[in-house]
Amino acid sequence: MASQQFDPPSGTRDFLAGDLRVREHVFTAIREVFERYGFEPLQTPAFERLETLTGRYGDEGDKLIFKILRRGEHEASGDADLALRYDMTVPLARVVAAYGSQLPTPYKRYVMGPVWRADRPGRGRFREFAQCDLDIVGSTSPLADAEVVCAIADALGAVGIGDYTILLNSRQALTGLLRAYKVPEQAGGQVLITLDKLDKLKPDEVAGELVEGRGLDQATAQALVGDLTAPDAVDRLRVALADDEEGRAGLAEVDRVIEAAAPVAGEARLLFTPRLVRGLGYYTGIIFEVAADGMPGSIAGGGRYDHLIESLGGPDIPAVGGSLGVERIIGLLGDEAVTAPRLDAAITIMTDGAAEAMDFAARLRHAGLSAEVYLGSSGKLGRQLKWAADRRARFALIYGDQERQAGLVTVRDMDSGDQHQVSPADLATFIASRTAPAS
Amino acid sequence: MASQQFDPPSGTRDFLAGDLRVREHVFTAIREVFERYGFEPLQTPAFERLETLTGRYGDEGDKLIFKILRRGEHEASGDADLALRYDMTVPLARVVAAYGSQLPTPYKRYVMGPVWRADRPGRGRFREFAQCDLDIVGSTSPLADAEVVCAIADALGAVGIGDYTILLNSRQALTGLLRAYKVPEQAGGQVLITLDKLDKLKPDEVAGELVEGRGLDQATAQALVGDLTAPDAVDRLRVALADDEEGRAGLAEVDRVIEAAAPVAGEARLLFTPRLVRGLGYYTGIIFEVAADGMPGSIAGGGRYDHLIESLGGPDIPAVGGSLGVERIIGLLGDEAVTAPRLDAAITIMTDGAAEAMDFAARLRHAGLSAEVYLGSSGKLGRQLKWAADRRARFALIYGDQERQAGLVTVRDMDSGDQHQVSPADLATFIASRTAPAS
Repeated sequence: MASQQFDPPSGTRDFLAGDLRVREHVFTAIREVFERYGFEPLQTPAFERLETLTGRYGDEGDKLIFKILRRGEHEASGDADLALRYDMTVPLARVVAAYGSQLPTPYKRYVMGPVWRADRPGRGRFREFAQCDLDIVGSTSPLADAEVVCAIADALGAVGIGDYTILLNSRQALTGLLRAYKVPEQAGGQVLITLDKLDKLKPDEVAGELVEGRGLDQATAQALVGDLTAPDAVDRLRVALADDEEGRAGLAEVDRVIEAAAPVAGEARLLFTPRLVRGLGYYTGIIFEVAADGMPGSIAGGGRYDHLIESLGGPDIPAVGGSLGVERIIGLLGDEAVTAPRLDAAITIMTDGAAEAMDFAARLRHAGLSAEVYLGSSGKLGRQLKWAADRRARFALIYGDQERQAGLVTVRDMDSGDQHQVSPADLATFIASRTAPAS
Repeated sequence: MASQQFDPPSGTRDFLAGDLRVREHVFTAIREVFERYGFEPLQTPAFERLETLTGRYGDEGDKLIFKILRRGEHEASGDADLALRYDMTVPLARVVAAYGSQLPTPYKRYVMGPVWRADRPGRGRFREFAQCDLDIVGSTSPLADAEVVCAIADALGAVGIGDYTILLNSRQALTGLLRAYKVPEQAGGQVLITLDKLDKLKPDEVAGELVEGRGLDQATAQALVGDLTAPDAVDRLRVALADDEEGRAGLAEVDRVIEAAAPVAGEARLLFTPRLVRGLGYYTGIIFEVAADGMPGSIAGGGRYDHLIESLGGPDIPAVGGSLGVERIIGLLGDEAVTAPRLDAAITIMTDGAAEAMDFAARLRHAGLSAEVYLGSSGKLGRQLKWAADRRARFALIYGDQERQAGLVTVRDMDSGDQHQVSPADLATFIASRTAPAS
């Protein structure tokens, strides 16, 4: 059989201990921050009913849904009735609809877990990947927006990422700007999709697309792009929106969120960025994205989406949320982010010493130390000490005829080679005092 | 739309915060024990290639596999190419085959996560449920068997379950017993399946099935069932196997495992149980099951399966493992197992106090305390204090005109109603000293 038969399915990964420790370190650090903000955990099933998911993400999104075949007599039909979750937002909408009155008001929840998308696998692009979302459902307060931004900033700090910028903008301000430029309302969504390319394309290219693809006249397109990419873009936006009530409200919201988030995120990191659009059409207020210095794309993002939960089948309830790109963040950290814990004690076994070895192991484990008993077939001490070294044990325990007669255990420091004779009753204290974390 | 449209799919569950805290408590306690034994975590994808899974669990098992429809142009074929994992053993076999030389020898791994089976949902039976396995791959030592048993015993202790019995037996001893009774070898597997019912049916009923269903003569069936269910079943087994080398080896193995596990699990809890069969045909040596007092069925089980990994497509490598029935264990514990953490501080907001509220929250959170800022629309203190009470906050912070003039924050003890004036710089210390865990 071909060896690739043992690879995980295309676009998925096996995580062995080393990888998992880095991932757990990141998840735990983020979780602790979110809990301090009063966000509650939520866990929904891996799959949802197919009709819950389809039609939520547009045609392109629907194509990426993993569908589950019906079972039993219905399997032959080739029909699907379930599908793996594509994101955490649709399950959130379902939960809000299902448990509404049982949930706190506002409902602040975080979620960490895998989602599945049948995307073409590529570098850093997986079909199974972790998503980490936090949302506040049921509050229209700009402080809720600021809380989401602050929680994300604190979470990045907790995982050790400090070099980043939080770009903020307002969908209302963008809409007001289009009004100020007399862009027809029905063309607005498409114009925003084109403006969203300002972070990748040159201003002239975007202006060109606005003329050719979106039907704007040359002067409007150039002025719009010019305003959004100018160094004084924020000031130009304020001028352009002077007579637009909704647009001014949007500007004021960005100002308030930046003011409220500044004590936590740091004022220098919070950047009002008029050209920020964010692709998803469902945002209604504040939008934000976190850019890590020297890295393309974003490592977090989010915004206010006051009508999304209703459009996903839930009640009409305001919401704001954000998502941490945990896979990218884990990639930024690399393997050295977490030092693998060392095995405290490797217990060798000489003739007839099995019962004692198990007893020593139990004493150490009950004291909170990690201990392994030799499970191989060699009776030779040298081979067993090599095993202890391979296991990166801090100490090896030796209990042969001499030790048995003396009623003592030889404890070998695997780093220095020093050996001590220790009574079984003192083993745990002896090793604990020498393996205590430096902190 | 019907309200059940918002339920999770049949046989699956949404876990809100309270449920999740109990589950996390159990998983964390078990994980800590396994880590102290030197088991490493492993995580594999939710789905495997369909051919990796089918044919591994018999026809009955295959029917329970959730299959994933092919995508894109292949979707219309109605064919599946992937399937949700049904257990953790097949992925383990694949991992051992894929990463063999990169893994430690022996490879001791634990895994906790969901598996999916399209079983008929019922009370305590789910289509998505957590499985928690630990296995030692690459050791034939009876100490490996004992380590698995001890780790499970310690894990049960760690989650607070003490009233249980560990039933142990040996597949080799059972096979030897059938030989001693001259049961034809090809009938052995089926006879064992019938004997497995001794924990549910009366001895006469089982003997009857052995005669009618398995073709044993009346005397043999009665004697076999009589031996296995007698109070001195172990002694009878030793007598019956006196001349059977493999059977005697099996008996000796059970004795050694009980001896080695006794210091940890307690001798009184370890019960040599000749009638124990365990349904799965792949066991080759020691088998065990953990019965919680006063509860039908088992809460853990396992055994040695020296050829299973090869039969699942991996290398021919000995292995022993066990599985904790975490869903049953969580059910045994109930909701009161974990006290929900209290919110340390609920921060009310009077006119224009938003920036200060965010600042107070940041001070508390950076000191490791949990804090929430009022995100509602009421400007009334009474309403905001009701919110603080609903959030079960230990303290509420009030910062109105008086406080602003004095440069102090009113800290209200939500249990006693006492109020203190505290300077912003002292807030975290003040609250931390009054919310420290009693431990």
